[in-house]
Amino acid sequence: MSTKVSPLAPTNVPDMPAIAGVRLATAEAGIRYKNRTDVLTAVFDKGTTVAGVFTRSKCPSAPVEWCRAKVPRGTARALVVNSGNANAFTGRNGRDATALTAKLAAAAAGCKPHEVFLASTGVIGEPLEAQKFAGVMDGLVARAEPTAWLSAAKAIMTTDTFPKVATATARLGDATVTLNGIAKGAGMIAPDMATMLAFVFTDAPIAAPALQVLISRTVVDTFNAVTIDGDTSTSDTLLAFATGAAAARGAPRIARADDRRLAAFRAALTGVLADLSEQIARDGEGARKLVEVIVEGAVSKRSARRVALSIANSPLVKTAIAGEDANWGRVVMAVGKAGEPADRDRLAIWFGDIRVAHKGARDAGYDEAAVSASMKRPEIRLKVDLGLGRGRDRVLTCDLTKEYVAINGDYRS
Amino acid sequence: MSTKVSPLAPTNVPDMPAIAGVRLATAEAGIRYKNRTDVLTAVFDKGTTVAGVFTRSKCPSAPVEWCRAKVPRGTARALVVNSGNANAFTGRNGRDATALTAKLAAAAAGCKPHEVFLASTGVIGEPLEAQKFAGVMDGLVARAEPTAWLSAAKAIMTTDTFPKVATATARLGDATVTLNGIAKGAGMIAPDMATMLAFVFTDAPIAAPALQVLISRTVVDTFNAVTIDGDTSTSDTLLAFATGAAAARGAPRIARADDRRLAAFRAALTGVLADLSEQIARDGEGARKLVEVIVEGAVSKRSARRVALSIANSPLVKTAIAGEDANWGRVVMAVGKAGEPADRDRLAIWFGDIRVAHKGARDAGYDEAAVSASMKRPEIRLKVDLGLGRGRDRVLTCDLTKEYVAINGDYRS
Repeated sequence: MSTKVSPLAPTNVPDMPAIAGVRLATAEAGIRYKNRTDVLTAVFDKGTTVAGVFTRSKCPSAPVEWCRAKVPRGTARALVVNSGNANAFTGRNGRDATALTAKLAAAAAGCKPHEVFLASTGVIGEPLEAQKFAGVMDGLVARAEPTAWLSAAKAIMTTDTFPKVATATARLGDATVTLNGIAKGAGMIAPDMATMLAFVFTDAPIAAPALQVLISRTVVDTFNAVTIDGDTSTSDTLLAFATGAAAARGAPRIARADDRRLAAFRAALTGVLADLSEQIARDGEGARKLVEVIVEGAVSKRSARRVALSIANSPLVKTAIAGEDANWGRVVMAVGKAGEPADRDRLAIWFGDIRVAHKGARDAGYDEAAVSASMKRPEIRLKVDLGLGRGRDRVLTCDLTKEYVAINGDYRS
Repeated sequence: MSTKVSPLAPTNVPDMPAIAGVRLATAEAGIRYKNRTDVLTAVFDKGTTVAGVFTRSKCPSAPVEWCRAKVPRGTARALVVNSGNANAFTGRNGRDATALTAKLAAAAAGCKPHEVFLASTGVIGEPLEAQKFAGVMDGLVARAEPTAWLSAAKAIMTTDTFPKVATATARLGDATVTLNGIAKGAGMIAPDMATMLAFVFTDAPIAAPALQVLISRTVVDTFNAVTIDGDTSTSDTLLAFATGAAAARGAPRIARADDRRLAAFRAALTGVLADLSEQIARDGEGARKLVEVIVEGAVSKRSARRVALSIANSPLVKTAIAGEDANWGRVVMAVGKAGEPADRDRLAIWFGDIRVAHKGARDAGYDEAAVSASMKRPEIRLKVDLGLGRGRDRVLTCDLTKEYVAINGDYRS
């Protein structure tokens, strides 16, 4: 596990307010790591709704299957997350482990097992010893309190070098509602839904089907627009919990995602998920550069996304950025291999504000010294205009460094 | 450029025989490198046929466009290849450079420019100063001789650490014909046709359309089944030249690719291209392990190919192999993200001869020590049985090491 904090870590960590109806606690269950917390439990008041989006992997983890089966019921009373073991590709043992964990949490929280949601992150293929939760579960529920957000975010880290939290408020009717989010990332990040694990909590009274539509739409340009290494996890999970506590303060009960009163909430939700997504890119394994890839002039947004991901996942583009080399020829390569409509002779490429290529050749005013200087910055913006249409998209990634290889070659994360 | 030879380099370099009708020479044109050869010229006797397969990149190099336009004529008298500059994304200058190079070679060889074939490899986006060929072209043609195969393979290297040559013979009618091949690889290797540059020469009298069908079919399981980094080059070129000189010794003239008399030739061609492909994987940038990925039990060969490439291109699988870690959970991840039909609970995975996973969980007899010991070997075989159908495929790749990052971050190759 990395011990040095990413140089791209946010300098300010927000104060995370309480969310009425949510209490949190963490513990050391000794799943894999020593001397650190590795289990998070959140307890929700009655009436809390839930929605979720999960990995599209054909080999999903046992907790993903558990949550997928329970989300349609729409209600939640507890969330249990562990780090150190993904409980993925663990067969019957894995299914038994989820059932046991939910049973233990339900007994402690006084609810039904199907009201308990689960997520696990860590090694794939090792049996999860869920009985280890037995010793800590009652204490977790008893100690749970409303402001333990930062310790919650820490307990779910694997190769992350900093905890990821975000918060926002929004007007809903005459009330102010709050949204808090936590996430973990680092490696195996090419979310085909969301990154490994992210959880959003709000006191807004939003019915489960509406909450589901809201998060499904919002992941498209947040978590699904981040890639660290093009490797999609078996465990990608985003769960959203809405306690509805703000109804007591006058917030209207929302039944439909297209309710006009949701405008501010929707913006706040987008803000929280975008913030967490960017933090994941900033904490990519071994990352020293945050890279924003913008593709414009594509035939559609979908086509722009594919070209942007082809650039963002290219090892040659990412190693060049690690070496602070404005090797835009590799961007041409990545556009060319994407398989999307592109016309070499209409292509333009910018590094930061400097146009380096134009109409199928190096820009007439190309100044290698200026571009090289811009590559020294910790945040790199790479823009491509395909010159074909109005499709535009943006993805975030990071550079590919020797540290990425070390983290993933020297340590079984 | 790497100076140390890959530890995976073949220990025996074959003696490369002459091919009647082919003469070769190399020179130092000073395109980019100092004190090494960087231009190869091959001269062919009248009557030589030609076929080619090229990158499917939407941003192909100028020489690729040149060859694509000339191959349909079916005849060749010269080949000019340079290293150090790819003449890709070079606009009008690039087209002018190809025309000038062909004109210089045609004048020296006494043929028409459209009978000259071109390939370039090296940096993308830098104008190619083709006038540098003017000083060396007459000498190249004058000095050309039949056995300069190894120096030919050396002149086209970029980050390659060893020259790649292969040879075979085959009976054709009552005559023995010879096939020689040379190639270069190293990085930006995910051929969507062939690797960067490969050339095959034979004295067999095969008409151009038949030669085209033969090589188009053969690349599928040779060059197109190799990936170093998932990055497809703008310059991928495979050209095959058949001088027909063996007709004088009684070889029948072949007009159609499905001529039954071609059976031995076809096998020899497959052998030469497979040999060169494997050498490319053995010389992947920074490689210390040759990795063979076999996928069986898929619903089709096409599906097996996609799953195999998902594994072979996964940075997490490749870094684990670099670290000699039998992290088969990452293979599960790569199967899951491939988007192809897969059933987690039917999946089985082998590292070498050891089955590590079976029916959706770790194998009951799993012995980490035995698997770890097998990972120390320089050649790793990874087999996945999806348990669904009879589709099978195989791809070659290498591990992802810190040296790959260094080569591509520290040096503009």
